[in-house]
Amino acid sequence: MQSFEVDKKDFLRIKTALEGDDAELELVLKEYHPSEIAILFEKLEPEERERIINILPSDLGSEVIAEMDEEHRPGELLINLDPEKRSEIVEELDYDDATDIISQLEEHEQREILEDLDHEDASNIRHLLSYDENTAGGLMNPQLLCVNVNSNKKEALDEIIRQSEEMEEFYTIYVVDEYDVLKGVVSIKDIIKAHADVKIKDIYKDDPIFVKADLDQEEVAKLISQYNLTTIPVVDDEMRLIGRITVDDIIDVMEQENTEDLLKISGVSEDEELSGNWLEAVKSRLPWLIINLATGFLAAGVVRHFPTVQVAIPAIVAYMTIVTGMGGNAATQALAVTVRRISLSDLTDNQAYRTVLKEFSVGMINGAVNGIIVGAFALFYDGSAMMGLVLFLAMTGNLIVAGLTGAGIPLILKRLGIDPAVASSIIITTFTDCAGFWLSLWLATNLLLHH
Amino acid sequence: MQSFEVDKKDFLRIKTALEGDDAELELVLKEYHPSEIAILFEKLEPEERERIINILPSDLGSEVIAEMDEEHRPGELLINLDPEKRSEIVEELDYDDATDIISQLEEHEQREILEDLDHEDASNIRHLLSYDENTAGGLMNPQLLCVNVNSNKKEALDEIIRQSEEMEEFYTIYVVDEYDVLKGVVSIKDIIKAHADVKIKDIYKDDPIFVKADLDQEEVAKLISQYNLTTIPVVDDEMRLIGRITVDDIIDVMEQENTEDLLKISGVSEDEELSGNWLEAVKSRLPWLIINLATGFLAAGVVRHFPTVQVAIPAIVAYMTIVTGMGGNAATQALAVTVRRISLSDLTDNQAYRTVLKEFSVGMINGAVNGIIVGAFALFYDGSAMMGLVLFLAMTGNLIVAGLTGAGIPLILKRLGIDPAVASSIIITTFTDCAGFWLSLWLATNLLLHH
Repeated sequence: MQSFEVDKKDFLRIKTALEGDDAELELVLKEYHPSEIAILFEKLEPEERERIINILPSDLGSEVIAEMDEEHRPGELLINLDPEKRSEIVEELDYDDATDIISQLEEHEQREILEDLDHEDASNIRHLLSYDENTAGGLMNPQLLCVNVNSNKKEALDEIIRQSEEMEEFYTIYVVDEYDVLKGVVSIKDIIKAHADVKIKDIYKDDPIFVKADLDQEEVAKLISQYNLTTIPVVDDEMRLIGRITVDDIIDVMEQENTEDLLKISGVSEDEELSGNWLEAVKSRLPWLIINLATGFLAAGVVRHFPTVQVAIPAIVAYMTIVTGMGGNAATQALAVTVRRISLSDLTDNQAYRTVLKEFSVGMINGAVNGIIVGAFALFYDGSAMMGLVLFLAMTGNLIVAGLTGAGIPLILKRLGIDPAVASSIIITTFTDCAGFWLSLWLATNLLLHH
Repeated sequence: MQSFEVDKKDFLRIKTALEGDDAELELVLKEYHPSEIAILFEKLEPEERERIINILPSDLGSEVIAEMDEEHRPGELLINLDPEKRSEIVEELDYDDATDIISQLEEHEQREILEDLDHEDASNIRHLLSYDENTAGGLMNPQLLCVNVNSNKKEALDEIIRQSEEMEEFYTIYVVDEYDVLKGVVSIKDIIKAHADVKIKDIYKDDPIFVKADLDQEEVAKLISQYNLTTIPVVDDEMRLIGRITVDDIIDVMEQENTEDLLKISGVSEDEELSGNWLEAVKSRLPWLIINLATGFLAAGVVRHFPTVQVAIPAIVAYMTIVTGMGGNAATQALAVTVRRISLSDLTDNQAYRTVLKEFSVGMINGAVNGIIVGAFALFYDGSAMMGLVLFLAMTGNLIVAGLTGAGIPLILKRLGIDPAVASSIIITTFTDCAGFWLSLWLATNLLLHH
């Protein structure tokens, strides 16, 4: 297949085919990969999605549903199918995907789906539903390939072929003992090359990297990325192998964590769905705006503290808005760099100290450069060298505050065990707003008004 | 191995061992995975890194260097090793990793390293160096497993075992014809299960997903993530198989793209290194701050346009800073959600229209709620119902502007083929600053001053 992305043309083709009969629609659908149909689904109505799933063979239909983005509610699509088709599709799904989709539904809907499944599938999915979805247990798939450490070449190969019947792909062959305790991994290449009388225990690699089922998914992602793994085994408290997590699931976790970081730093609740409706957006953002309003009153209080200078020298009002605006943006810059750096690796105390020192220097230099520009403007436009000096000092001072808080506050939060991305721009700009107004008005009062 | 991350304790252990002799150091190093040593390297001095690489066997040393973060300059470490050790390490590296590291060096340093390598390695690396590092060609590894479409079971298995000698892991076995043209993939399971007289052409899966060598790495990442691939084949213009890209390299690309998005949206140049020094940071951020200064003058110009009202009703000055501050943060919220949404999937015109409409509604509601709060405050604190009305209207209006620009501008940029993350908070807040000041002062002039 040529590698391409679906575009408007494909969407129009599907839309046209949806107006025709089932045979015609089936012909058109055949030309698309399930992932592509999943993308086209985003732009279709629920009834249209349902019709397409009913037309597709169950194996393809299940791939489409597995590929659908969580926010397009594959669970709702599933629950609306007729029970027979639904069971066929769930049985085709990998257990981890089936669990993700079913977990979105209400409990009575979950029961309805599980009741129709065969006993083994139902109990596997029920077991997976018991894990927190943000942990290794919630990500893992219990279907994996494992051989007994005491088996010989033929036994191992037979076992691999038997187990792999139910799996599309396998990456790693795990080695366990008779109690299912994880011992290590073995490569298919080494099994094939081995003599007939060699046992797995002679050729396997021990000391494997593994995770416990309750480990947070973000930590799992860090391990997989750090050790360049394709798959990682999941064990219970007795070191028994209970599942594996593959790198493709981790990619979704990483995208999700990156979305949350960007939202948090921008003062949006991390669980706002990107394509959610206005009501969800209001619920997610209003609390942050109200916090911002409180901090805004704080900054406005600083302004109200200097009524005389504003009346005596009105120009300072316009200039102070420049000083605070610049501070806010410089703080956002320092914040973004620091938060991202923390999220990619932990910093030592020494590195943290040097980061704050660096942002202090950056703030001083950027502040001085911009302070000279705005100061020179005041000198020529308002004809006041003293106003120029006030603005130069206020700008430099406020950009130093911006650097110190933009870098320092997320680092302090991290040390306190709080997510540093919570130091959103809303929190940081409180400091630069207050400092910007105070520096501008205090300096103007003392250097312009009283002289 | 227990799955853990290196911490301060490990760092202190290495530091202490570095004070002892080589034998002692070697013993301590043996307890760490190469990925862990690479992380510890971040906190060591260049001479200490060199000493450790010299002590480690070349296969482990090469893994450490491959795992080092680009910003800690593995290339410089390599060039400073003595030539024999250096060649041993480069020969142990995968070609794609070797190319990444060598590409960081000056041309004469690259020549110096390549001259010492054997002919095949040198020419492979030279070839890979010719691709743009941000394309599929720059990411791919020419080492892969492929079998001829006309080979039989025994030939294929022999070939697989022979080729896999040089590879740590293989995921996919590619099928090519006699001209190296990519035909498809075949699973090791199907080869093992096949009868002796079966040929690959009877069991392989055709129509594979592939990329051309010049495809942008971000597009490669999207394909791999979209189709849940572990590896993707790279072909030249004649469809000849020239390499493969594995998902672990894509994880690094994704982290890099996510870093760039967060930096751009925060008004930081996308290529600022997170742990770069103050000079790099100034170079990367000062241009954006100067743009911000220009837009700040614009907003200050709006303020200067209404001198009378500020003197007559000084309270409006403090209040207008609240209105603009809230607008800036509401715009940042809408911007973050929209930019992230665009970067995860393309929006149809209809979806784009509905997004802007949604942000309009969100802005109106959040504006009204916050407008009521600040208006009520003005009513009680300043005893002026009219001031309350001015602030209610200005706040609502400005948060509508925030929603419209925060969502609308990145969508328009995307339509124009410009990276939507360039609509950084600096650009967006220009609109809310100007609108916030203008609405506050114009309404105050007309409702408070002239009545």
